[in-house]
Amino acid sequence: MHQLNGGDVDSLIQPRIAAAPRSAYFVSDSTGVTAETLGNALLANFPGIGFQRHTVPFVDTVAGAQNVVRDVRAAAAAGLAPIVFATVKSAQIFSEIDSSGAVVIDLLGGHLRELEAALGSSASEQLGQFHGVGDIEKYFARMRAVEYAIEHDDGQSMRALDLADVIIVAPSRCGKTPTTMYLALQYGLLVANYPLTDDDFPSDGLPRTVSPYLGRCFGLTTTPLRLSQVRHERRPNSTYSSLAQCTLELRRAEDLYRRNRVPFLNSSTKSVEEMSAVIMQSMRLRS
Amino acid sequence: MHQLNGGDVDSLIQPRIAAAPRSAYFVSDSTGVTAETLGNALLANFPGIGFQRHTVPFVDTVAGAQNVVRDVRAAAAAGLAPIVFATVKSAQIFSEIDSSGAVVIDLLGGHLRELEAALGSSASEQLGQFHGVGDIEKYFARMRAVEYAIEHDDGQSMRALDLADVIIVAPSRCGKTPTTMYLALQYGLLVANYPLTDDDFPSDGLPRTVSPYLGRCFGLTTTPLRLSQVRHERRPNSTYSSLAQCTLELRRAEDLYRRNRVPFLNSSTKSVEEMSAVIMQSMRLRS
Repeated sequence: MHQLNGGDVDSLIQPRIAAAPRSAYFVSDSTGVTAETLGNALLANFPGIGFQRHTVPFVDTVAGAQNVVRDVRAAAAAGLAPIVFATVKSAQIFSEIDSSGAVVIDLLGGHLRELEAALGSSASEQLGQFHGVGDIEKYFARMRAVEYAIEHDDGQSMRALDLADVIIVAPSRCGKTPTTMYLALQYGLLVANYPLTDDDFPSDGLPRTVSPYLGRCFGLTTTPLRLSQVRHERRPNSTYSSLAQCTLELRRAEDLYRRNRVPFLNSSTKSVEEMSAVIMQSMRLRS
Repeated sequence: MHQLNGGDVDSLIQPRIAAAPRSAYFVSDSTGVTAETLGNALLANFPGIGFQRHTVPFVDTVAGAQNVVRDVRAAAAAGLAPIVFATVKSAQIFSEIDSSGAVVIDLLGGHLRELEAALGSSASEQLGQFHGVGDIEKYFARMRAVEYAIEHDDGQSMRALDLADVIIVAPSRCGKTPTTMYLALQYGLLVANYPLTDDDFPSDGLPRTVSPYLGRCFGLTTTPLRLSQVRHERRPNSTYSSLAQCTLELRRAEDLYRRNRVPFLNSSTKSVEEMSAVIMQSMRLRS
């Protein structure tokens, strides 16, 4: 199983873990994504503590809440001193969860009251339900964006390249594909990506296929060591993954970006989310 | 531009908008994803109000905060009564933003104090920075998952199908691809998807390629009307998009799921996030 939300990073740095492990519950009346996202961002500030994470989505009944309370109490009995992050809108369901005796952090209710006061309007009854006219539009746009990203991954197709919001260029294994897919899924952007290969050098310009879209190109680079690590995953002990080859390709790519005024980013210490945010900011794709 | 985070749904349902438009700022010292996710989940409860959304990532200096304050005050002057959702860890930067005079909702700081008290430990200095040993591991797993999803999209490859955490089966246009990609990117799951075509009927069993992995198959269905709408997007006025054909294909698919005890889900009123959460819960892919 390859489940990796941000938080699992903690479990991957066991050596640093000092304090006793605790359990963290992300309880939501919807998908749990919001609870996981903010909960993990908060837990990331306590790298010294190991957390056993549990996400419980669709807790939208008192009975559902009572099941959560049972689990949380069991974890407490097992000495795992649970922390519960809740995004449930119903005050009744929340108080049920709150009765577990664990530390329950209300990520939603309090802010919802703040908003109601600020907006002088009371919250509607469908939390996080985007099932109106806009929904199918959003669905179409996301589907189009993901299919566009798949079609245009790794320079596979040049069809409708003029529709691209961004064209990510970089040597192999610098992070083009996950970043492309994240921008498509999270923001519905049309993103193509194009690999810089030996064939593209020593030309001083961008590869002919993408050069007409210079203004939409964004480059990725990384450190030779990181690139060598990543390539080693795919082809151990190959020229392709050698430090010398990685150093050469990255230097050529960065020269190309500079010569052509292509904005670029070093991906070696950035998450896919961070790269996407930087790209959107740099390309002014975010209002 | 096809930027579509959850909130843009509001802007797509203009006809329902009654109250005066307001501006909503998502201000973060990191990517802004957390601020957008929770902020939009909160705003979704006020469908009657139109929001002009602005995300400002990487606000990690007082100077950066002062720029935000300038923009927020300009929006206020323009009569857009701003709401600011902030995920900034530094108390100094937060109070700078708070000085804008707008309604500023602190999505992080308060909860961070709660957590510090609960955990008897003080927050580290690297909010949301997953740049330790775990980072490259997480990066590899996500990259593998996204590449696996691309390789196995729409039954293109049967290679290493035995590694799949889930195999999504459904007729064309029921939502296999975006859901597959979301599970790969958000959770690092290895997800294949396989289209049910006329060739797979009238056989009573699952398609031969996936039948060995029956236990990992999850089916999607939708309503004939929705499927016809979605297919119409791709091939207007075709047999493929006709209501009759959609009705037939969905009935056959649902019969197939039932006969083979394949868990399935109607995607017609669900977001990609919701479908993913249901699939993970049903396949026990979430702790």
